[in-house]
Amino acid sequence: MKTQDKQKRFLLPEDEIPTAWYNIAADMPNKPLPLINPQTKEPLKAEDLYPLFSHAAADQELNQTDRFIPIPEPVRELYKNYRSTPLVRAYGLEKALGTPAHIYFKNESVSPVGSHKLNSALAQAYYCKEEGVTNVTTETGAGQWGAALSYATKAFGLELAVYMVKISYEQKPYRRSIMQTFGAQVIASPSMSTKAGRKILTEHPNYQGSLGTAISEAVELAMQTPNCKYALGSVLNHVSLHQTVIGLEAEKQMAMAGEYPDVIIACFGGGSNFSGISYPFMRHVFSGEKKTRFIAAEPASCPKLTRGVFQYDYGDEAGYTPMMPMFTLGHNFAPANIHAGGLRYHGAGTIISQLLKDGYLKGEDIPQIESFNAGELFAQAEGIIPAPESCHAIAATIREALKAKKEGKEEVILFNLSGHGLIDMTAYDQFHAGNLIDYSLPDEEIKRTTDSLEKII
Amino acid sequence: MKTQDKQKRFLLPEDEIPTAWYNIAADMPNKPLPLINPQTKEPLKAEDLYPLFSHAAADQELNQTDRFIPIPEPVRELYKNYRSTPLVRAYGLEKALGTPAHIYFKNESVSPVGSHKLNSALAQAYYCKEEGVTNVTTETGAGQWGAALSYATKAFGLELAVYMVKISYEQKPYRRSIMQTFGAQVIASPSMSTKAGRKILTEHPNYQGSLGTAISEAVELAMQTPNCKYALGSVLNHVSLHQTVIGLEAEKQMAMAGEYPDVIIACFGGGSNFSGISYPFMRHVFSGEKKTRFIAAEPASCPKLTRGVFQYDYGDEAGYTPMMPMFTLGHNFAPANIHAGGLRYHGAGTIISQLLKDGYLKGEDIPQIESFNAGELFAQAEGIIPAPESCHAIAATIREALKAKKEGKEEVILFNLSGHGLIDMTAYDQFHAGNLIDYSLPDEEIKRTTDSLEKII
Repeated sequence: MKTQDKQKRFLLPEDEIPTAWYNIAADMPNKPLPLINPQTKEPLKAEDLYPLFSHAAADQELNQTDRFIPIPEPVRELYKNYRSTPLVRAYGLEKALGTPAHIYFKNESVSPVGSHKLNSALAQAYYCKEEGVTNVTTETGAGQWGAALSYATKAFGLELAVYMVKISYEQKPYRRSIMQTFGAQVIASPSMSTKAGRKILTEHPNYQGSLGTAISEAVELAMQTPNCKYALGSVLNHVSLHQTVIGLEAEKQMAMAGEYPDVIIACFGGGSNFSGISYPFMRHVFSGEKKTRFIAAEPASCPKLTRGVFQYDYGDEAGYTPMMPMFTLGHNFAPANIHAGGLRYHGAGTIISQLLKDGYLKGEDIPQIESFNAGELFAQAEGIIPAPESCHAIAATIREALKAKKEGKEEVILFNLSGHGLIDMTAYDQFHAGNLIDYSLPDEEIKRTTDSLEKII
Repeated sequence: MKTQDKQKRFLLPEDEIPTAWYNIAADMPNKPLPLINPQTKEPLKAEDLYPLFSHAAADQELNQTDRFIPIPEPVRELYKNYRSTPLVRAYGLEKALGTPAHIYFKNESVSPVGSHKLNSALAQAYYCKEEGVTNVTTETGAGQWGAALSYATKAFGLELAVYMVKISYEQKPYRRSIMQTFGAQVIASPSMSTKAGRKILTEHPNYQGSLGTAISEAVELAMQTPNCKYALGSVLNHVSLHQTVIGLEAEKQMAMAGEYPDVIIACFGGGSNFSGISYPFMRHVFSGEKKTRFIAAEPASCPKLTRGVFQYDYGDEAGYTPMMPMFTLGHNFAPANIHAGGLRYHGAGTIISQLLKDGYLKGEDIPQIESFNAGELFAQAEGIIPAPESCHAIAATIREALKAKKEGKEEVILFNLSGHGLIDMTAYDQFHAGNLIDYSLPDEEIKRTTDSLEKII
């Protein structure tokens, strides 16, 4: 009675889970421009980052030579609790679209905290523990990163304080509660507990918060607390590095499926899940072996990839971070209160920005309502309710699959399902109630926030 | 660089997913007493159930001869979207308890709707579709079953109306929203849309609802709607049958781990997840090959297994269902408003009741606060926040593991993690706030609701 049907889900045995992350910086045709120390205006050295980050993370941040960096055994042990994540052929979605395209997704939503964020959280918490750190601070937008780091710090016996973007704190009380269940302290940002928070609350009493502001607060607290480091969930090179476990697995799993992706799609906030699934495949484009296309699906209301400028900018609102060469809308850009809180960030990381400049990927802007329509279609076709962030990747996938249908092409599409939306149902309620609107962002607004940037490039 | 550590998660290849469910009724030393038609007081025939259930489900309900019943291929195809679910060695929990016991759990929370309920929902929806049914009604307590059936009916192109216990409707708005995202209509129960609902609302205007009442409403709507069937998520034999896919997988996976469970534990509401993991193992106890113990963890506030009577009773509040021989607190028993909504049911199914009578399993009463303490410990040790229902299984597991520690025994414990709690964070908030209380249930209250039962046995 064995079924004759094709396999749907592809999983790796535990000993096939990657033992090293892939460091794309070693292979890039053009290396990213250096980070700049805002005090000295000199290129940043790893030591400049030591006060803020674990030394291991700081070293990884600037490492442009080692192609593979070993995954520490205790981190890999915890990866085994949920990895490999499944690679799934989305037969249901293909059928719903009537497309000849073969759609695959890498299902990071099966992580116990519901998203890919745990891949870097475990690594960063481990390094902190190894280096004798006792306390960690961070920020979180939608709450995915905060939830992941809450569990990761608990797993390694560290204390954690999380600054959670206020709009998410209010829209997503369950995520706050998840962090608290893992033992973390959660503060709505902007808060009165930091200089950066007090300043913005004084100037804009009703400010709903942004990742940029929350980062400022978390950095400030880390700098003022003994034996405390800061951990970031996206944007930085070492975070993208840790996320490459996604793409390294997907590469083996696509081989199990007997196919190779023509196009790879992920949503884009700070870039961590996009980098994670893309970089391991992109190296074969550098080498000329493959012609894979890469699409970063960003919200139309926060379009740094398609409408931002390539310039040095700060990673946070208050200007505490090093200056980074990035596609940015300006660190003072206040994104609209869309439900995909994890995508409300003003800039892209240095590596991804260089790769975009060099034409290796393409940004695609997705309006909010299109993203939820896509998410609901996917939910009904595949049974998984996607996170509002991931809905953007699905919307871009659907665009691509419908193009393939029009052209009659059996294109192979791989997208990253970065997280599930079971904790984001308020957003779906708003969608069902017809309360969502698509914000139109005038050029003048972008000009205002980018014109003020120092012209270093 | 391969790791030398022991394997943590055990997964089956797709062609090892069971092709048939296990029907324990064929092997029971003492068959369950018959269901009784309340009108004729005669033993029920499958035809008596045809107006209410799909014929296939009705036939399965009374089937006491076929040991294995094939899983229809379209159902098995949809199982592949999430099955096999992982069998996981809970090293983190073992360490936190300092126990020599080996603790395994079957992780049904990775189902896309977050619980084991999908295993039966897909089967029941498929049979309805095959038989030309267009509309389905059901009830849901915590919302796990409703969410599962919402997706399953959508997958097979059926319309669904869900009566959701009012206390859950209010405490768990996300679950309502999940059902609506899958396209179902959701009504808080008791409602004014049925006679049964109107009656109870008239007598008790503030009644917070119960599974018994919601079942009455769903049954009434199904009986009055053309081409409409009713589907139940627990209690009945055919539901337990569908859930045996859990135990059949677990049996193979335990063999992969090279161990065999000394004790198997699951939480107990209507019995579906308990039966699912237990029955395939229990057959080897019938045959004398094994001495496995089985523990059903029920809430202390709804103790039908330990303090109920074995008597004929109705499955619902209003008395629409057949009379079933069951351990029951009486169909008028109104369970306290604990957060494990899925365990607030007055009775146990006919097969499980016979097995309990014959000494094959043991009920264990878990106070609410103990259950959440256990759930939080598990969350911090394993990274997965369990559903309030599953917390009861974890609490019983911890009791068992600590007993093994005291006795210095390397006992092998297997429990079923029936679902995750990511949509139940309100309950954890209440727990953190110290707002939970442990209801003490006086004997007189149980006597009141059971004395009124017709004494048929």
